[in-house]
Amino acid sequence: MRIYGDLQSGNCLKVKYTADALGLPYEWLPVDILRGESRTAEFLAMSPMGQVPVVVFDDGRALAQSNAIVRYLARGTDLLPEAPFEQAQVDEWLFWEQNAHEFFVAGCRFQMLYLRKAAAEREPWRVARADQALDFMDAILSGRDWFAAGRLTVADISLLAYTRLAGEGGLDLTPRTSLRAWIRRCEQALGLSPVETAQ
Amino acid sequence: MRIYGDLQSGNCLKVKYTADALGLPYEWLPVDILRGESRTAEFLAMSPMGQVPVVVFDDGRALAQSNAIVRYLARGTDLLPEAPFEQAQVDEWLFWEQNAHEFFVAGCRFQMLYLRKAAAEREPWRVARADQALDFMDAILSGRDWFAAGRLTVADISLLAYTRLAGEGGLDLTPRTSLRAWIRRCEQALGLSPVETAQ
Repeated sequence: MRIYGDLQSGNCLKVKYTADALGLPYEWLPVDILRGESRTAEFLAMSPMGQVPVVVFDDGRALAQSNAIVRYLARGTDLLPEAPFEQAQVDEWLFWEQNAHEFFVAGCRFQMLYLRKAAAEREPWRVARADQALDFMDAILSGRDWFAAGRLTVADISLLAYTRLAGEGGLDLTPRTSLRAWIRRCEQALGLSPVETAQ
Repeated sequence: MRIYGDLQSGNCLKVKYTADALGLPYEWLPVDILRGESRTAEFLAMSPMGQVPVVVFDDGRALAQSNAIVRYLARGTDLLPEAPFEQAQVDEWLFWEQNAHEFFVAGCRFQMLYLRKAAAEREPWRVARADQALDFMDAILSGRDWFAAGRLTVADISLLAYTRLAGEGGLDLTPRTSLRAWIRRCEQALGLSPVETAQ
């Protein structure tokens, strides 16, 4: 399969982490979204949503939306439980990530890392919601090791991608000790080099 | 099962539409989010995310996140394809709805309907993204009748809920004729009374 993505984008890294964890071979095709490369006629013909990541399988079919992709790649493996209710609990976190986390946590990072804004230029409402999302994750993880099914699943992989890079958006993980311990657990399970999470 | 929800909330209506379409019996328990009823200690003990809808099944297990719920309720029925790739295409739209549609389209309506703001008080960036989401849906629907799998699925139900009520957020569906025709198709398939979509 071919993965169209940007290695700085957490949404794209979710797909890389999942494919690497499952040992799936792929070709990585870099897309520069700031240069509009995900909005060209050619890209839109492949994936009308005009966003990365997009995965194109060997039969030519394309799939967009990071969490739809990781869910599809992980089907039938330990990363996605077979039991319907456990699978639904993974989905709870996947949808929460897209609705209550990504726009705020990744949004802060996008402004600083891509748009080169200062921390003080981030919208206060976005920072507040990002902090709220990180606090909620920290509280959940004070009571358990993984988000769903009692083991590493795509729910963790999806949440990990932007959470471990939250510092690049001016968000401080230092006081969130349960969250930081979970980041280490995920990194170890996925064979990732640990990022700095304390300031 | 018990559905904790607010009949004005599109996220909650998704669950109602799905349960009604499948003939699933339920008890509807109204939750007033503006009065903080989804943030009480009792509610948070049931569902830590503190949002509606929440479904509590007869065995006591609770599930949150509208799209995780409708996906779970629809498993094994025509509303969710069995074939993995078709199911992933439904997921594409479910995640897109939570990431690129709900925060903007539902957000405009929340400000006007719940917070009683005037249309001019909505943030320009939110209105722009809402219009962009509706235009994209309209473009997709100019080429097909349903979002995935060539038939009504939970992708349509999820997108329908806030889209058919977009006018209440000051968004004009009038020029989006493919979108309006799809709303009618969905309403007919689901046995809903048609809403006014032209101004």
